[in-house]
Amino acid sequence: MSNTPYTELLTRAKEAWLLGTVSSILHWDQETQMPPNGAGHRANQQALVARLAHERATDPRIGDLLASCESSRDMADPEGDQATNVREIRRAYSRAIKLPSALVEEMARVSVLAHQAWAEARKSSDFAHFSPWLAKVLKIKQEEAACVGYKDNPYDALLDEYEPDETSANLVKVFESLRAPLVELVGRIASTGRRAPTEILERPAPIAAQQEFGCMAARAIGFDFNAGRMDVSVHPFCTDIGPGDVRITTRYDEKAFGDSLFSVLHESGHAMYEQGFLPEHAGTPLGQAISLGIHESQSRMWENLVGRSRAFWTHYFPTARQFFPSLADVSFDDFYRAINATEPGYIRVDADEATYNLHVLLRFEIEQALLNKDLSIADLPGAWNEKMQKYLGVTPPDDARGCLQDVHWSGGAFGYFATYTLGNLYACQFFDQAKHDIPTLETSFAAGDFAPLLKWLRTNIHQHGRRFSAGRLVKKVTGSALSSAPLLTHLRRKALEVYGV
Amino acid sequence: MSNTPYTELLTRAKEAWLLGTVSSILHWDQETQMPPNGAGHRANQQALVARLAHERATDPRIGDLLASCESSRDMADPEGDQATNVREIRRAYSRAIKLPSALVEEMARVSVLAHQAWAEARKSSDFAHFSPWLAKVLKIKQEEAACVGYKDNPYDALLDEYEPDETSANLVKVFESLRAPLVELVGRIASTGRRAPTEILERPAPIAAQQEFGCMAARAIGFDFNAGRMDVSVHPFCTDIGPGDVRITTRYDEKAFGDSLFSVLHESGHAMYEQGFLPEHAGTPLGQAISLGIHESQSRMWENLVGRSRAFWTHYFPTARQFFPSLADVSFDDFYRAINATEPGYIRVDADEATYNLHVLLRFEIEQALLNKDLSIADLPGAWNEKMQKYLGVTPPDDARGCLQDVHWSGGAFGYFATYTLGNLYACQFFDQAKHDIPTLETSFAAGDFAPLLKWLRTNIHQHGRRFSAGRLVKKVTGSALSSAPLLTHLRRKALEVYGV
Repeated sequence: MSNTPYTELLTRAKEAWLLGTVSSILHWDQETQMPPNGAGHRANQQALVARLAHERATDPRIGDLLASCESSRDMADPEGDQATNVREIRRAYSRAIKLPSALVEEMARVSVLAHQAWAEARKSSDFAHFSPWLAKVLKIKQEEAACVGYKDNPYDALLDEYEPDETSANLVKVFESLRAPLVELVGRIASTGRRAPTEILERPAPIAAQQEFGCMAARAIGFDFNAGRMDVSVHPFCTDIGPGDVRITTRYDEKAFGDSLFSVLHESGHAMYEQGFLPEHAGTPLGQAISLGIHESQSRMWENLVGRSRAFWTHYFPTARQFFPSLADVSFDDFYRAINATEPGYIRVDADEATYNLHVLLRFEIEQALLNKDLSIADLPGAWNEKMQKYLGVTPPDDARGCLQDVHWSGGAFGYFATYTLGNLYACQFFDQAKHDIPTLETSFAAGDFAPLLKWLRTNIHQHGRRFSAGRLVKKVTGSALSSAPLLTHLRRKALEVYGV
Repeated sequence: MSNTPYTELLTRAKEAWLLGTVSSILHWDQETQMPPNGAGHRANQQALVARLAHERATDPRIGDLLASCESSRDMADPEGDQATNVREIRRAYSRAIKLPSALVEEMARVSVLAHQAWAEARKSSDFAHFSPWLAKVLKIKQEEAACVGYKDNPYDALLDEYEPDETSANLVKVFESLRAPLVELVGRIASTGRRAPTEILERPAPIAAQQEFGCMAARAIGFDFNAGRMDVSVHPFCTDIGPGDVRITTRYDEKAFGDSLFSVLHESGHAMYEQGFLPEHAGTPLGQAISLGIHESQSRMWENLVGRSRAFWTHYFPTARQFFPSLADVSFDDFYRAINATEPGYIRVDADEATYNLHVLLRFEIEQALLNKDLSIADLPGAWNEKMQKYLGVTPPDDARGCLQDVHWSGGAFGYFATYTLGNLYACQFFDQAKHDIPTLETSFAAGDFAPLLKWLRTNIHQHGRRFSAGRLVKKVTGSALSSAPLLTHLRRKALEVYGV
């Protein structure tokens, strides 16, 4: 291929991406392998890589190449390969050149140290140990929002990094359409006085067996262990190191095997999205995720819509009883009700499908208040606990189970939480369509065959990379715009099954 | 501190070093964690980091800064801080500017892929699978030697990277002074017809117990697990990720617990050298190893002079019998003789103290023949086996136990093996001096206390970083130049103890 402006642009984009993947391995190692005393040096490594990546991402030559490409005839189809790559490289470039190199480097350095302070603070439930670091992170993110610019709300400038083309105004509207029905549903379930037998899930399950069961399930749904691995970390996550190397983590508690298993299904969902990009697009926008909302739709689909389904457990319950002898006297129905219980709790990642979104709403509101300086960091634990009481009817007994529970803020991920609920919404919309397109879908699950769903996702979602915006993709695949109706229908059906209301 | 040429030089040297440590984590991950399909991407990552590091290492600004520093009055003491750093940065710069960037990048890329081919070839003992990659590596190393330049032997250009100021002519002389006495000693032992009861070491030892015992021993001799970790890899190694993060690996075989344990002691010795540099010199030559020979003197001292001593096992043998019940009926004397057996074998890393150096001699000679084109790659397996027969009296039954056994060449480490024997020589010289300086040294080992030796090493060797050349250091610490006498004395004493000859 001759060295056209477009090919040179791609070469440069791939180099910036390659540096980003170096940062990913440093991060993965930090979370899963690094000894405690290595944090200071790791912060310096990350800061250097971030600075180098930023230098590359903001090279004025990229601006020149973009301008050449944008006036080319090959851009005629706005969703063609070249137009997609040019549009998305332009998006990243426009954002990057607004950010001073020093700010980017500072965020990379602070995030490593803030993360370590968070992990220590969480362990001892000591908010004061984390709050000075949260203040540093928040200040950097406020500066970042000011540099990027926004119309109404600094939140939008940060959200845009994770969910391109989305706005807080639209999110407020969507989330409002969810909140009242969710609070009503959760309240209705509570008023029955009925409980699902969740104590089943606290029976001892040896960690080695959990690990083996998790690997088996991940492999069965389609996670490729030749192109990935599974480890242990404080907070489960998925990291795309690059083509052929996508890694997931989970955590183990002998008395909560569901916690680990559903994490594995969740992170496998993320990983299979990354493993589903076309190799020829590696390092270019066509080989990358369009948004975190779409990313999360993949994880939540496998975790909840597949992993908590009757069909999935029709196949796996007998095996689970072999792996975990403590389940020997448990009936299928009780097990199914237990994994589909709705019970307000303190921890987002442990939350059921219905209450989960209320956890997200709380964070969405608090983040905006922090960014807009309507809430001080000193008042954060109080505000958190107050909202927990209001939305979920519970008050965390300590900050470890309150505002210190999530890793995100320590790494600077403000504007991120909202994408979790977007993921839940998209997941239900996509899954309804997949069931419509493949009438035998759930029959295949019951036979332990998940290939039809993965193939559908590969075809309809994964292979497109960033070709279509999230909004355009959901419209294209399902025929409908983003809607809360499928999620609410799904949750109401579960409530009827489990609680009879 | 004002921005003098010297401070700017150090800032730049630290940045190049920091990039090098990023490469180290990529390498460590490749050896211990990376899934098989990740190798292609890893090669691209390493190539990029190598190119960036090389760009920094060869920036003409470094040449200007070096010139300014070299004419400064602060250089008066040739072994002062500034003179040391400037001298060693000059050494690295002079080498780096001779190497074309494309060659450096190519070596980084090829080494990842060649390493993977080597690991596969070794598994199936298929030399043909590795030989095209070895040819690529050799060609690059020949080009590298030509670029660096040399007087008599291309080997010198490569050796200089690992053992500064050393020459192949001098090595030939030193190695000659070892070969005849070693061959004589090994032959004399064989002629007794006596055998040490080495089958003791093949008794089953559960891997979990080996792991625990190894960790305990590493911690006891002084490896700091808060600033490091221990993992599993095909070939044991030590990687310095940076201050606070030095990692070692080992491997486990249920029927060869000594293989793992002595690896752990060996790699811990390397790691403690790295952990012993002064934090204020991090990233500068004063905080780095002077040579691989000195590095190896640390690992071999802990592995052999400490780890195979009567004193060490006086403390640990009762514990070993608790960890490994299969040793219950073994006497201390039989165990001591078993771990100090002299038995020619195929594998260098399994070799005893006496035969080990003959394995090194063989590689030293073959490397020179390959580099000088006196030996073709096709003829390598034959030449290897012939020399094995000549020096050790055994012929490897396959290439996995012959010329495919070592990782080094796949990563481009030509000129490296010689430093192993240098390490054995230096180790004995240093250890004799330590025993002289601390008469109670071995009594403390017998009580499980290794702190006196580590303190002696910290003071006499570790803290100096690159202040003194290897030759100067051994003279300074022991009063003698490099000599084969202490090693030969040590080996003869062991032969007398174990075989009565």
